[in-house]
Amino acid sequence: MEITDSRVQDTFELLLHEWRSELDHRLTHLLESDKPPVLYEPIRYVLVGGGKRIRPVLLLLACQAVGGDISQAWDAAVAVELLHDFTLVHDDIMDNDDTRRGRATVHKEWTSDIAILAGDGIFALAYRVLLRTQSPRIQDVLTVFTDGILAVCEGQALDLEFETRPSVSLDDYMEMIGKKTARLMQVSTRVGALVGGGSDVSATALGRFAQHLGLAFQIQDDLLDFMSDEETLGKTYASDIRQKKQTYLMVHALSSSNQNAAQRLRALISAETSGSKVDEVVELFEESGSIQAARQAISEQVAAAKECLSVITQSREKDFLLQLLSYISKRNS
Amino acid sequence: MEITDSRVQDTFELLLHEWRSELDHRLTHLLESDKPPVLYEPIRYVLVGGGKRIRPVLLLLACQAVGGDISQAWDAAVAVELLHDFTLVHDDIMDNDDTRRGRATVHKEWTSDIAILAGDGIFALAYRVLLRTQSPRIQDVLTVFTDGILAVCEGQALDLEFETRPSVSLDDYMEMIGKKTARLMQVSTRVGALVGGGSDVSATALGRFAQHLGLAFQIQDDLLDFMSDEETLGKTYASDIRQKKQTYLMVHALSSSNQNAAQRLRALISAETSGSKVDEVVELFEESGSIQAARQAISEQVAAAKECLSVITQSREKDFLLQLLSYISKRNS
Repeated sequence: MEITDSRVQDTFELLLHEWRSELDHRLTHLLESDKPPVLYEPIRYVLVGGGKRIRPVLLLLACQAVGGDISQAWDAAVAVELLHDFTLVHDDIMDNDDTRRGRATVHKEWTSDIAILAGDGIFALAYRVLLRTQSPRIQDVLTVFTDGILAVCEGQALDLEFETRPSVSLDDYMEMIGKKTARLMQVSTRVGALVGGGSDVSATALGRFAQHLGLAFQIQDDLLDFMSDEETLGKTYASDIRQKKQTYLMVHALSSSNQNAAQRLRALISAETSGSKVDEVVELFEESGSIQAARQAISEQVAAAKECLSVITQSREKDFLLQLLSYISKRNS
Repeated sequence: MEITDSRVQDTFELLLHEWRSELDHRLTHLLESDKPPVLYEPIRYVLVGGGKRIRPVLLLLACQAVGGDISQAWDAAVAVELLHDFTLVHDDIMDNDDTRRGRATVHKEWTSDIAILAGDGIFALAYRVLLRTQSPRIQDVLTVFTDGILAVCEGQALDLEFETRPSVSLDDYMEMIGKKTARLMQVSTRVGALVGGGSDVSATALGRFAQHLGLAFQIQDDLLDFMSDEETLGKTYASDIRQKKQTYLMVHALSSSNQNAAQRLRALISAETSGSKVDEVVELFEESGSIQAARQAISEQVAAAKECLSVITQSREKDFLLQLLSYISKRNS
């Protein structure tokens, strides 16, 4: 019996709600100690701060998609969320972002020093939780996890490098987000497949699926920077534009065939970017076709992601992975 | 046949030289990539920057002391050195230290953002190298390693907390250095014993030995802050005093029964600590008997460390561990 799209959607939303509650519960009860408070107060602040939980959901779905039992995968699911949290805390210092998930960032609520330390602590906690996983593939799981972190650091380094590089190509940009954003999603599905006892072929396919999903996610994120509002987004409106970040839009517009628009954009971002300038930048994105190009790039990544799932046996979880892909490319927060 | 003390010393020094060369070689050739340079240049700078290599030497000695083969332990030895490097890079940002191992610290040579990222990268590299270890106890090894990092973070948090705490007791201080400094030495010998196939009793005994050695090491470090010169030490002279750090000396002197000295010290450190003030602080340390007390505390830790080795079978490596203990408590750099 084939289930309808809306049935899939309803069932998936119920499951998402259930899993997010379980994740919230586990994250809230993770800390065994609250001393010293200088370390554990900011860590707790991060753990209870909510979030979309995309990475652990990807991990759990991948585990089930290969026929695994998710009761063995919860620790790994919490671990990938912690890894994500660690990167956010440190990246927010480097990007000097003031808000995250609708609240002050750790370095704003406390200090940069405390945020460095809290990030380090969350990093170690991620391994502590992951090490609880009972799996014959634990050393492979740890290697995928560890190589992933190094790739995320490389992605963040490229992002910093772009700030001073005279010109950034779309290929450079895709490499950067492939490492900084998509890689951890790839890690999530690969770890889920390994813990679930999946074959290496399935683990690789699910990894590549999440890599494409992650690229779509990040380009959508670049769009949301100025297409969503501060409240929905939980972070500063147009923060990328204000910081002259090399986003898909910026990279595309600067290398646009519309020379006039590219030149005006270059002049705009070489000056201070005030509120009114943000609107002008957005207009130039539109004028140079960059918004359309970003939407097109998202569609391509979504199609590539779907293609990767062809080797995965049809199941409820495969439908859910496709559902998640659809959410991510259409989300507004 | 009993070997003489000077024979032990000579043989140990030869071995130390050999091991340090091997460690330098492995650290220099560790990186598989040099791109992106924003990440790998500062990491390489740290890896080739030398150091006493106490932690890997402890690990290798512990491995041999339980009858293990050190050819299985090199990756773990490199991993504990990397872990130490990661903590130095991040701590130097928090402590705002300008020099380390005779060179500019990473955040001074580059920026704080780059130093945060380089530290994170070294942290991940530590796990990558550790994961190469072939051992039936690998999950235990990883757990000891991970719990150790969290303890080091707690120690650093206590150190930050002490900056604003109205009064710090010697017990508080010993807890702080027990976590911040000694714990990683304990991790080193415990991991060495586990990789070497030692019993849990041996691993615990060697761990406790290194914990006491680490406490002696840190109190000696506190003394060297103002008893050694900048060139020998490779870092800023009297940097602890200038930063009003809660060292063994400071904590002891402030809680000294010599009320007059304690009061003058309090007045001194509430003002700006210029060069001439440093001399006055040192005089007050002397006057309040704190220098003598620190030396006494080192002797006690050395005696406790020796005691821990009583369960370890007599061997050349046991002699070497005692030799290392003796070096550490008498070092001038």
